Amino acid sequence: MSSTSQPLTRSSVLNALPLIAPYIHTTPVVTSTTLSSLSTPTTGPRLTLFLKCENLQKIGAFKIRGATHAIARLSDAELSRGVVTHSSGNHAQALSLAAAEAGRRRGIAVPAYVVMPAGSTPSKIAATRGYGATVTFSGPTAAEREAVVREVQQRTGAVLVPPYDHPDVIVGQGTVALEFLEQVKAMVAAGLDVIVAPCGGGGLLAGIATACEGTGVRVYGAEPREGADDCVRGLKEGKRVEAVKSSTVADGLRTPVGFNNWGVISNPEKVHGVFSVGEEEIMEAMRLVVERCKILIEPSSAVPVAVVLGNPEWRAEIQRVFAGREEVRVGIVISGGNTTIDKIIELFSKKTEKEA
Amino acid sequence: MSSTSQPLTRSSVLNALPLIAPYIHTTPVVTSTTLSSLSTPTTGPRLTLFLKCENLQKIGAFKIRGATHAIARLSDAELSRGVVTHSSGNHAQALSLAAAEAGRRRGIAVPAYVVMPAGSTPSKIAATRGYGATVTFSGPTAAEREAVVREVQQRTGAVLVPPYDHPDVIVGQGTVALEFLEQVKAMVAAGLDVIVAPCGGGGLLAGIATACEGTGVRVYGAEPREGADDCVRGLKEGKRVEAVKSSTVADGLRTPVGFNNWGVISNPEKVHGVFSVGEEEIMEAMRLVVERCKILIEPSSAVPVAVVLGNPEWRAEIQRVFAGREEVRVGIVISGGNTTIDKIIELFSKKTEKEA
Repeated sequence: MSSTSQPLTRSSVLNALPLIAPYIHTTPVVTSTTLSSLSTPTTGPRLTLFLKCENLQKIGAFKIRGATHAIARLSDAELSRGVVTHSSGNHAQALSLAAAEAGRRRGIAVPAYVVMPAGSTPSKIAATRGYGATVTFSGPTAAEREAVVREVQQRTGAVLVPPYDHPDVIVGQGTVALEFLEQVKAMVAAGLDVIVAPCGGGGLLAGIATACEGTGVRVYGAEPREGADDCVRGLKEGKRVEAVKSSTVADGLRTPVGFNNWGVISNPEKVHGVFSVGEEEIMEAMRLVVERCKILIEPSSAVPVAVVLGNPEWRAEIQRVFAGREEVRVGIVISGGNTTIDKIIELFSKKTEKEA
Repeated sequence: MSSTSQPLTRSSVLNALPLIAPYIHTTPVVTSTTLSSLSTPTTGPRLTLFLKCENLQKIGAFKIRGATHAIARLSDAELSRGVVTHSSGNHAQALSLAAAEAGRRRGIAVPAYVVMPAGSTPSKIAATRGYGATVTFSGPTAAEREAVVREVQQRTGAVLVPPYDHPDVIVGQGTVALEFLEQVKAMVAAGLDVIVAPCGGGGLLAGIATACEGTGVRVYGAEPREGADDCVRGLKEGKRVEAVKSSTVADGLRTPVGFNNWGVISNPEKVHGVFSVGEEEIMEAMRLVVERCKILIEPSSAVPVAVVLGNPEWRAEIQRVFAGREEVRVGIVISGGNTTIDKIIELFSKKTEKEA
């Protein structure tokens, strides 16, 4: 990536938003009476839930924010050599689209190179190519992947835009919180008390925490317990967990928290806690959001919903912090919606069989 | 219903919107590059699609508009005797919620009575009761249903709010078009050229046509071909078809067009055409909207999408009317999202089995 990058401060996020706003959607915020009452415990303040629908964002996920911001900060000379990343998920499509759109705006060709592990889902390979990217395959380990990225860089001079572990990416993802806070204020003058976001590589969570600094809004992270709760474990041990092995249904979160991201997330003044939930809870939360809020979400997006619906430690934290309050306004970032009807059939038919 | 009712004019719809706006959601409008390009034929103008998401409306469907409007026009004295309707679908929940909310606002109890055919879906019965309504069962025919409604009216003095065949309901549904036109104008100054909406009982379509009068926006209806294309057949024969028998997947549209509605829809200056699509096309359109637009829709909402994606007569009409234009901006009203993951599994697994 370019030698300069933005400091991880709220003002960097405030500067980032106008740079990317013309090229992304201001996604809607939806509410649900049912979800709000289901998540309210029998004692303590009533919860009112607001969902920020980044599943309705371009490419179906918040990832376009970080990619568009990172690219916006590169010069025409840098961009004409191209951008490269390693990702088999939403970031691959985000960077490919952001590169193509920046190229059109600036009147130059911006090649995008994406390194994916061999055997990636054909529909994801096709979607990434559909945005004009060149896809190269690598072995499954981080070392093999990075070797291929270096080879592409040496050959083309392309700038690496990592999927989450870079300040410009983190700051770009943080813009979602600025929009969210403003949108809820327009709906309810008092605004949000809390934001809960999923935590995989941690770009989204770190960005939101950076954006919320000094606003008084408390920021919480949510992880799948099954293998990918590296952040919860790392916080307990006071040390970043550097690798995860997980087959959680929340496949977007099967990633350890990145180095830059950890710096933000492990700061208790920025992120006020990270909580984990089990697979059944994630599935149930996904079903509820799809059926009650009428939006398609990917399993990773159900993770913060599951925390709010019933993680006992999170509940205790809210009751402690907001003791005596009548209502707490909880914002949940719905990170993406990249799944399919066939995948839903696979996920939920399995569940039904198991129950039977 | 009350002895007075609104004339079916655009100004009635303009008057209705501020009466109901505080109690309904201004649902978002979403766009999809993929859907727009899929629906653009190889010749003629490029189509740009805008989807008005009434699936994100209260109770998950546009029906809350008509119910809220009809109730807003009743006096406290009338409301305190209650409202009654026959519906096993979205109107049942809409009227129940609108009655409960009007009661809270006016500080009176507003009983809601809903007559459903015996054997209605348990989840729909439960949802209607969940809003506080009293559910009474009837036989399956229109005559049996109406007899039970009359019995409730005689016993309670409740006002009948029919699901679609009443001017106040039609005018209420039409408010969706006012919002839609304004929202698209804020996105693209030139605004919508066309609105396509599903047609079952015809309340939504007649309301939209009434709202669009004099705006220059052309309004089209969409029906399932399998049995429920009564409107298409009626228009051909110059006579309203009074009963339908259909097992179309678009179960919200298994209804003949109502009397008042027919008056609007059969007027070629108000509704510029009604088009029908087959079951496979409806399913494919539903899959596309769910997967590409990331929203949950019920099969009935996929019907206008299927028309825009490929009904040859509709395409010919657009090419004729907009000959020489580069772009046509097409608004589609997504009428509702009341379905479940289990229902999706049932619908789409069957399809896969059939294909195999």
